Amino acid sequence: MRKKKKVNAAILIIGNEILSGRTQDKNIAFLSNWLNLNCGISVSEVRIIPDVENIIVKNIRSLSKKFNYVFTTGGIGPTHDDITAKSISKAFKVKYKYHKEAYKILENYYGKKKFNDGRKKMAKMPAIAKLIYNPSSAAPGFITKNVLSLPGVPSILNSMIENCKKYLVKGLKVYSKTINLYTVESNISKQLEIIQKRYKKFVDIGSYPFFRLGKIGVSIVSRSTSKINLVKVHNDLIKVIKNKKIKILNI
Amino acid sequence: MRKKKKVNAAILIIGNEILSGRTQDKNIAFLSNWLNLNCGISVSEVRIIPDVENIIVKNIRSLSKKFNYVFTTGGIGPTHDDITAKSISKAFKVKYKYHKEAYKILENYYGKKKFNDGRKKMAKMPAIAKLIYNPSSAAPGFITKNVLSLPGVPSILNSMIENCKKYLVKGLKVYSKTINLYTVESNISKQLEIIQKRYKKFVDIGSYPFFRLGKIGVSIVSRSTSKINLVKVHNDLIKVIKNKKIKILNI
Repeated sequence: MRKKKKVNAAILIIGNEILSGRTQDKNIAFLSNWLNLNCGISVSEVRIIPDVENIIVKNIRSLSKKFNYVFTTGGIGPTHDDITAKSISKAFKVKYKYHKEAYKILENYYGKKKFNDGRKKMAKMPAIAKLIYNPSSAAPGFITKNVLSLPGVPSILNSMIENCKKYLVKGLKVYSKTINLYTVESNISKQLEIIQKRYKKFVDIGSYPFFRLGKIGVSIVSRSTSKINLVKVHNDLIKVIKNKKIKILNI
Repeated sequence: MRKKKKVNAAILIIGNEILSGRTQDKNIAFLSNWLNLNCGISVSEVRIIPDVENIIVKNIRSLSKKFNYVFTTGGIGPTHDDITAKSISKAFKVKYKYHKEAYKILENYYGKKKFNDGRKKMAKMPAIAKLIYNPSSAAPGFITKNVLSLPGVPSILNSMIENCKKYLVKGLKVYSKTINLYTVESNISKQLEIIQKRYKKFVDIGSYPFFRLGKIGVSIVSRSTSKINLVKVHNDLIKVIKNKKIKILNI
């Protein structure tokens, strides 16, 4: 068996509605969790950009070079502001044209009479694209080189995600352990730094303040592709916390 | 009076916890809405990046050149993974050192005895930084050239936002009008495109499908810095919708 490597991805959210604050994004957290858990792929960067062709083209070009995969969300519907497929065609200098199978799927779904121009548009893709099937509303996503394009509506995106799997090379999964404490960050910052330095190459330790029921707390999150090192860090953290007599809320 | 211009900004979310999907971001929508409503500043790009120094440095350099303002969130606390201030110093090639006033504010807040190294770290900033006061937990944010650095915890960020105002030049506010319909996008895509072409330079029309109580709907959002053109587009849209006998849910 070939040894697994680290595999990364970027998410490119295309849509004025997210950028303007009108719509709260839900796809970033879903995609990031799903990719790590199911494919061992880590999301290394996210960008949110407007529905503007030259901006989409530039971002597709730079992100697809920099990361193993790019996931785009949004802009693949039937209206004038849905320009993701056209822009990706331009980014990779390939034709933007009807995908035969996508055309058939959509014609079947709507029926010949109701298959109007807007709906036909959803079958237009980069000439080299392969389909990502959509079990909930027919209109397929597609993959162009290492760029996977999904819709922006979270429930539809979620229903399609399993169909991305066959296109993805699996990498090393990142495991994590969380310790929630009732304390303030600065009470343990020194000790955290010492432990982080000790396991510098193997484990990332993050510290995140929270407020719950009027009390201040800290979540210490350790993340690693190595389960053994993760357990070592966890044990070191527990030792420090017990020495400091800090109350552990949960682990 | 000088005529107002378009002013834009980027948001740079610094934090592994957002990127990994562990934490759902709430700052993007808040900042974007607040900036437009209160300062006429449009958010033109958002990036989410990890707590890695050279990545922060690169992004600060490129975004601060490209946009009028950059807002960073996260990474200004007392722990080892809080490296925003240090990275911004490096990006602008200025010293990273104690800010006298910030030091005093924090020393006062915690008292001399409890003012430990972690807490002192929150007074270290780029040498040229000016403070953004924090009414809820003392530790100030700061502005370095055109980069404003705020904390990641939404409630604290929200409490500080008014104190950013004095550093911002106001721009043209973007107004918007929304029409919610019970229909499918493809039913009106042709008409939307015609109206969009008519007002190409003045109004952006976006179309966003939604699902509510088991029904499919579309939100048509028109956005413009010109109130007059916004009303014109709105009236044209209403005419088209009435012609098509589509039920308007609300305006």
